[in-house]
Amino acid sequence: MIKQLLIGIVCSAAVLTFGILIGHFGINKSSNSAPSWVKDVTKDVDESFIEKFLSEVDNIQIQENLRELTKVPHMATTAGDEQTVQFMLKRWQDPETGLDQAWREEYMVYLSFPDPNNPNKVTVVSPSETVLYAAREKEKSYTPDQDDPEVVQPYAAYSPAGHPKGKLVYANQGKPSDYHLLNTTVDLRGTIAITRYGGAGRADKAINGAPYGVIGVLVYTDPLDINDGVMSDLNETYPHSWYLPPSGVERGSFNTHYGDLLTPYLAAKDETYRIPVKDITGIPPIPIQPIGFEDAYKLICELGGEAAPALWQGSFNCIYNFGGPGFKLTSAFNNSDVKLDIFNHEKLKNSSNVMGVIRGSVEPDRYVIYGNHRDSWVHGAIDPSSGTSVMLELTRVLGKMVKQGKWRPRRSIIFGSWGAEEFGLIGSAEYTEQYFTKLSERTVAYINVDIAVFANATLRASGMPSLQNVIFKASKQVDAPGLDSTSVYDNWIQYANRTSPTHGLIPKVGYLSGAGSDYAAFVHYLGITSMDISYTYDKSKTSARIYPAYHTAYDTFDYASKFIDPGFISHQAIARTAGNVLIRLADSLVLPLNCSDYAETLEDYLNTAVTLYEQQLQNRHISMEPIKRAVASFRNAATHLDQVIRSSDLANETPLKVRRINDQLMLLDRAFLDPLAFPEKYAFRHVIWASSSARKPTFPGLADAYAKAESLVESSAWDKVHYHLSVLSQAIEGAAHTLEDVI
Amino acid sequence: MIKQLLIGIVCSAAVLTFGILIGHFGINKSSNSAPSWVKDVTKDVDESFIEKFLSEVDNIQIQENLRELTKVPHMATTAGDEQTVQFMLKRWQDPETGLDQAWREEYMVYLSFPDPNNPNKVTVVSPSETVLYAAREKEKSYTPDQDDPEVVQPYAAYSPAGHPKGKLVYANQGKPSDYHLLNTTVDLRGTIAITRYGGAGRADKAINGAPYGVIGVLVYTDPLDINDGVMSDLNETYPHSWYLPPSGVERGSFNTHYGDLLTPYLAAKDETYRIPVKDITGIPPIPIQPIGFEDAYKLICELGGEAAPALWQGSFNCIYNFGGPGFKLTSAFNNSDVKLDIFNHEKLKNSSNVMGVIRGSVEPDRYVIYGNHRDSWVHGAIDPSSGTSVMLELTRVLGKMVKQGKWRPRRSIIFGSWGAEEFGLIGSAEYTEQYFTKLSERTVAYINVDIAVFANATLRASGMPSLQNVIFKASKQVDAPGLDSTSVYDNWIQYANRTSPTHGLIPKVGYLSGAGSDYAAFVHYLGITSMDISYTYDKSKTSARIYPAYHTAYDTFDYASKFIDPGFISHQAIARTAGNVLIRLADSLVLPLNCSDYAETLEDYLNTAVTLYEQQLQNRHISMEPIKRAVASFRNAATHLDQVIRSSDLANETPLKVRRINDQLMLLDRAFLDPLAFPEKYAFRHVIWASSSARKPTFPGLADAYAKAESLVESSAWDKVHYHLSVLSQAIEGAAHTLEDVI
Repeated sequence: MIKQLLIGIVCSAAVLTFGILIGHFGINKSSNSAPSWVKDVTKDVDESFIEKFLSEVDNIQIQENLRELTKVPHMATTAGDEQTVQFMLKRWQDPETGLDQAWREEYMVYLSFPDPNNPNKVTVVSPSETVLYAAREKEKSYTPDQDDPEVVQPYAAYSPAGHPKGKLVYANQGKPSDYHLLNTTVDLRGTIAITRYGGAGRADKAINGAPYGVIGVLVYTDPLDINDGVMSDLNETYPHSWYLPPSGVERGSFNTHYGDLLTPYLAAKDETYRIPVKDITGIPPIPIQPIGFEDAYKLICELGGEAAPALWQGSFNCIYNFGGPGFKLTSAFNNSDVKLDIFNHEKLKNSSNVMGVIRGSVEPDRYVIYGNHRDSWVHGAIDPSSGTSVMLELTRVLGKMVKQGKWRPRRSIIFGSWGAEEFGLIGSAEYTEQYFTKLSERTVAYINVDIAVFANATLRASGMPSLQNVIFKASKQVDAPGLDSTSVYDNWIQYANRTSPTHGLIPKVGYLSGAGSDYAAFVHYLGITSMDISYTYDKSKTSARIYPAYHTAYDTFDYASKFIDPGFISHQAIARTAGNVLIRLADSLVLPLNCSDYAETLEDYLNTAVTLYEQQLQNRHISMEPIKRAVASFRNAATHLDQVIRSSDLANETPLKVRRINDQLMLLDRAFLDPLAFPEKYAFRHVIWASSSARKPTFPGLADAYAKAESLVESSAWDKVHYHLSVLSQAIEGAAHTLEDVI
Repeated sequence: MIKQLLIGIVCSAAVLTFGILIGHFGINKSSNSAPSWVKDVTKDVDESFIEKFLSEVDNIQIQENLRELTKVPHMATTAGDEQTVQFMLKRWQDPETGLDQAWREEYMVYLSFPDPNNPNKVTVVSPSETVLYAAREKEKSYTPDQDDPEVVQPYAAYSPAGHPKGKLVYANQGKPSDYHLLNTTVDLRGTIAITRYGGAGRADKAINGAPYGVIGVLVYTDPLDINDGVMSDLNETYPHSWYLPPSGVERGSFNTHYGDLLTPYLAAKDETYRIPVKDITGIPPIPIQPIGFEDAYKLICELGGEAAPALWQGSFNCIYNFGGPGFKLTSAFNNSDVKLDIFNHEKLKNSSNVMGVIRGSVEPDRYVIYGNHRDSWVHGAIDPSSGTSVMLELTRVLGKMVKQGKWRPRRSIIFGSWGAEEFGLIGSAEYTEQYFTKLSERTVAYINVDIAVFANATLRASGMPSLQNVIFKASKQVDAPGLDSTSVYDNWIQYANRTSPTHGLIPKVGYLSGAGSDYAAFVHYLGITSMDISYTYDKSKTSARIYPAYHTAYDTFDYASKFIDPGFISHQAIARTAGNVLIRLADSLVLPLNCSDYAETLEDYLNTAVTLYEQQLQNRHISMEPIKRAVASFRNAATHLDQVIRSSDLANETPLKVRRINDQLMLLDRAFLDPLAFPEKYAFRHVIWASSSARKPTFPGLADAYAKAESLVESSAWDKVHYHLSVLSQAIEGAAHTLEDVI
């Protein structure tokens, strides 16, 4: 009986267990089983995937990308450009390593070219019209690259054609103050001014001179500004080093706006309305032409007149005089004119962006955009092909994972290979005009990697403060090129740092206030959180304004692989760092954007503004209390949102809560847009990051309005300061409102 | 043994069952149990809740709301206005029937008032300065309401003060064409023009006359335009009917912009920058004063000069002459002047919005906004208190459900009781300026119910086409007031209908192209999908431009309850219809916004534009192909999105997919915004719905640009047509992009 009882108990227990097992595993809780999507929507970034990504980024692949991209010159809309279009499409449509989709988008844009049949000329002409000297029409060859017939003659894009002839004067950097000073000693009417690069925008060197009667402008790169004084190609400059040979000439767009000049705020499609050419603003009103320092030396050292001030002197072994106007009595050029024969002409040309996409799995309607321009002035090994080679390596590694089914990002990733950047950021600007609303609504961030490697000393990063933290995180996980057991971050902090009230000593991230590359339309027109990174030089070792071969015929694969990044390990470090940021932006459950770091910048700006302006504004009965309150509101709201993020168990809450927080973070920069804040600046709408002529580390529109009011007598100029303060206060309060509890 | 076996089997079965039950219900499937939020996020609108809501909306409650709101005049910023602020707050903060939260928001705004100590005067003055006739300074009393000392004297807000005196002329409606014609027979310099309401905006009657030398303007309501000709208060007009008594005067804001005049695009906070008063545009440059038809009759029937054209004749039993200028020889006023003594003055005053919120449960960061202004000119029983009474009944019914824990909407609902609307939609405009970004990003729709009941014949609805369908759905569920077993929808379709290519015969929903009420800032400045509904009259039975007591001292509870809506059953129908739409917008899983109905409107606009303009544009080499392609893209994208919605089992898919579709629907109107599209129109940015002087049923900016180009000789005016076509094409293509697959 006991045995039977025991058997009964054991059997019952077994049956009960069996029942429990059936009940638990065998029957679906129809009303309460988790839908299959629950796991997907709560997934966070996978650190092991990032490790795998980092290990797969290959320096030799980048090197080979660069070799392919630099085979021929690929100036915008030329046959060489089309070759790179095809190459990008081939790579992005590759069945093994390509993206989900890739295609081209075309715009009909207004470009400016020299005439190959009538090269631009710069000559010294005697009173009897004898040509005493002629500047080089092309750069000297050191490798077959420079002999390629497709190397475009050095010219100033958007300089008008014309044949000005006049006495030469030296106008330093062509700044307003330079012409002002020069004009006090020389009558500038009818003169040709020679200027050096730096200090003022390219077009400004002509725009600033024309009101004084200057009729033509030359521009050159002084060895002081680019070569640390070095000048001889016998043993000093390229091909012996990275320095610019004497005949090297920086080309460029002489245009102060960005985007297609004929279709402001409209995508340049075939039938789009185009403004009359005469209504274009921001381009040189008089002919301008760039020359090499070899030629500049011949002209400047012969100039008569008084000696120019010490700050105007360059590296030439002569005194830089103002010009008599014209050459000195003792010169063979005495009494001669300088003549420009400029045959530039403008054309509507078809420029392509190449676009590629990896579809997001969970939030396909959220975009992380990564881009760089594709067009160069000549072979463009560094500018822009270093960045394009990096982008192609990223898409190869990520594309392979996608094609193999091993990975798909949470959010969509869009890659853009922009056209016609060199003429004024045209491809990216037209893209943002065409897709304005869609991009505004859905873009999490834009990553720009244009010149990936200027030099191999340290990382350089610029961007919105909210991105600082993810850049730090990514750069800590990447080895610094050529250094054992030092991270990119640890190396960087030694070259550029600052003390943050919150974080202590950290690397210094710059701001994207200008329009130096394709981030401009994303930052200034769309208000999208953006960043730009590269590897760059040690400023203690060179005073070069930029890498010396910039925009010349020497920016070739040979130059890049010998002097900029032998072994392509700095390229690899940039690919790893940028790719790491990209993956974190695309895959993180909560976006890695930190709004408190934005608050720190606003406080910093505010403190500077109070120090610089408050006393004088009080005298004018303009209160800074509203902007102080606005910045304080922003700080409080940011602290609160951080607290919500920290204290929530977001992986276990409704995905709509995560989405809500992510929308707050994503849209933060949009709150700073005001299309009326800068009526005189084309397509600048972000009140925190606009370009500023006052160059103060504070709110740009306030600084400019204040500087203007100080320089004018009309008291209405102070109204504009007050107005801009109200614009700022409202924008910052508005941004704070978006960070508060959503209702 | 068999028995034991049976017992064993039964016991085992029982134990097994018990085990299964334990296993199924007793143990949580930790790895696979549905999180508690899954059910919430997939919940759709609850039809039984809507039925309950409809049954609880009470006409007597609405009547009592109106009685309370109309106790005293409540012109903006007066003590009576403050009384209504307190009343709204008390109701919305009621612990039993209030909202989650309610508060006031204040703005310091620029208003214009007459001087109670120096009433405005209109007199006929003989050459010897004898006053031969003086117009009434206040309206005649029929009920104690008109005797309230707080009844503001009739005046034209924003008319400048001044004392013009001159010969009288009759300028019909004061349109440009009216003054043009009048000026061909009379020298208008130094004259006073009398005009009738209608045909042109209030301020325009003065703005249009001033260039001809007119120095003062009178405006009155002709009985033809408001009273179906009826004139006598002995037995015809109020208090005998809804018609306007002879002394009734329509007050109003004489201001062509909207929002605070001193703080364009900025919320009018205390320290906000204010433009100089001299820079205000869009207000009368010369004094203007409204009068009753009793006085207008005395003046017009004495006028000399030629007879005005037939279209200028009104209901008075005399010939309306142009004026000699001045009165006829046979008149007692012969050779006399009309003199205006206007003592209006402007003040900065503190105006309040009252805001209330019901927090959303699932998507608190999505807002449905429902609003109406609170301020009136006098007692404002119909304008605006009929709408406010309805809003208070909605909040009572919904608030009670919330307080009882029976309901909480999926999305947040924001109620706005706007201040200072009568002076130019000021409260709502300032609100949208202050919270621009937050509202742009999160608002699903805005529902405006200002005058809820003009009359009791039929529903009238205006709004974006995407809302048409939910208005239809809601109106089908509400009984038409006073009709057995007829729905509001079935009644409506008899009064106003059209044939839709898609839907066949449907009620006609109007467009919100103007700035007639507080929807203006939501539609034109923010691009938020908006609607405005009311009950209104049978146009076959009256030619009144509006209900006759509009903006007069007769718009009282007595008038409303006797002549507009006895029993308040039309108010109840509006509360039910608007509330039903509100609940559907707040609770539906997929937003009830139909993008294909938007496509139909765009096609309609396009067809009209092609018919009216294409031939002439072709002659000018301006192609309409881009806009045709854009509209076709929009239609395809809309069809595709509809298909996605129809074919998805959204209650069982990731909530992020529903959110994605809802974002596409919510943000659709934002794609039509272009802050540069209408440089001459303040705060008009929506390219589809702007006001238009050309008054063609097509794209407003295109129609205006075309009309202007046709009237001018300069060919550059055609450039503006081409430009605007490009703006439209880009906006419509941009909108289409947002409806396509998100990547």
